[in-house]
Amino acid sequence: MRGKFITLEGIDGAGKTTHLRWLEYFLKERGKNVMVTREPGGTPLGEALRDILLDSRQTMHAETEALLMFAARREHLDKVILPALSRGEWVISDRFTDASFAYQGGGRGLSLQKLNELECWVQGEFQPDVTLYLDVSIASGRQRTSNIRQADRFEKEQDEFFRRVREAYLERAKEFPERIRVIDANQSLEDVRRSVEKSIATIYA
Amino acid sequence: MRGKFITLEGIDGAGKTTHLRWLEYFLKERGKNVMVTREPGGTPLGEALRDILLDSRQTMHAETEALLMFAARREHLDKVILPALSRGEWVISDRFTDASFAYQGGGRGLSLQKLNELECWVQGEFQPDVTLYLDVSIASGRQRTSNIRQADRFEKEQDEFFRRVREAYLERAKEFPERIRVIDANQSLEDVRRSVEKSIATIYA
Repeated sequence: MRGKFITLEGIDGAGKTTHLRWLEYFLKERGKNVMVTREPGGTPLGEALRDILLDSRQTMHAETEALLMFAARREHLDKVILPALSRGEWVISDRFTDASFAYQGGGRGLSLQKLNELECWVQGEFQPDVTLYLDVSIASGRQRTSNIRQADRFEKEQDEFFRRVREAYLERAKEFPERIRVIDANQSLEDVRRSVEKSIATIYA
Repeated sequence: MRGKFITLEGIDGAGKTTHLRWLEYFLKERGKNVMVTREPGGTPLGEALRDILLDSRQTMHAETEALLMFAARREHLDKVILPALSRGEWVISDRFTDASFAYQGGGRGLSLQKLNELECWVQGEFQPDVTLYLDVSIASGRQRTSNIRQADRFEKEQDEFFRRVREAYLERAKEFPERIRVIDANQSLEDVRRSVEKSIATIYA
């Protein structure tokens, strides 16, 4: 039986890593084979592109950025995600295509149409079974990440950039209410976990 | 006045480098400001992508390869080609989009439609003013490159691959007879130069 594909989305500081680890534990406890991966990245080539994309000394056109994200994604689908799903594994990815709509669309201002075209070019009709969007205020996100390490090319953007990213995530959730679950990540850890568990209930047989 | 954009195409060993240098000399002698560049590459980001694309240890899906080629091209257009043309310079590029149709299309088997979509996504209606396709037999091309250096990821392909690349170049030349001039590169150097000079006469004011 084909596995399920779950993606986690949100700005840095939304708690993706924490909740991804918990979700992995939760599914493994229930006997699922789980593979955890991330974007951009997930393959040797994808990780090389991730280094380029996050390098804070790098500058590039917004369309170049989108093409590189989708190049890494094409490889990720081909080498990791689709084979794992075929083997019956459950795949959890820290970010996927919704992030391109949020960051390159909302953040950098690329048009929805151009992003839709690339999405269709790379993945056809393929979509995650469920997407958990961890929604957090810009201030909280900033606070939770400010002391971790040096800011990458995205993290060094201003609040206004992340305000547009968040808005684009919320817009996208409105457009795909069946697939994308908005989870209030300002809640307590325990409450967020309950929301995550509830959100995957529909695909969890 | 906007400069002219000339691209040179052909398989390795067709003599692109030799004729490109001569064309640069020819135009500079006639008072043109000439910028020489290449694909994949032409920008720091593009050269980093070139290293990934030509690395013979690298494997990647044909669509990933096409997306990376067009990502490098988007940056090349934005940072190098369009600004130089605006400044009135003549730009000569060692390969451009026709190479994607030849290598990723003919060579790797990507559909014309998918390549057309990417071309439109990245460059809209923009095209070179003239493209010189140096046509050489696979055997001659092989012979001229065999002793130069270690084969890159493309050069290590078999003759059948280059046969398809060459066929795709010739198909593309048939589709755009006004822009693409097929030059028989099996001729003597002197004869090829005469053909090159004749081919750019229409854009050379």
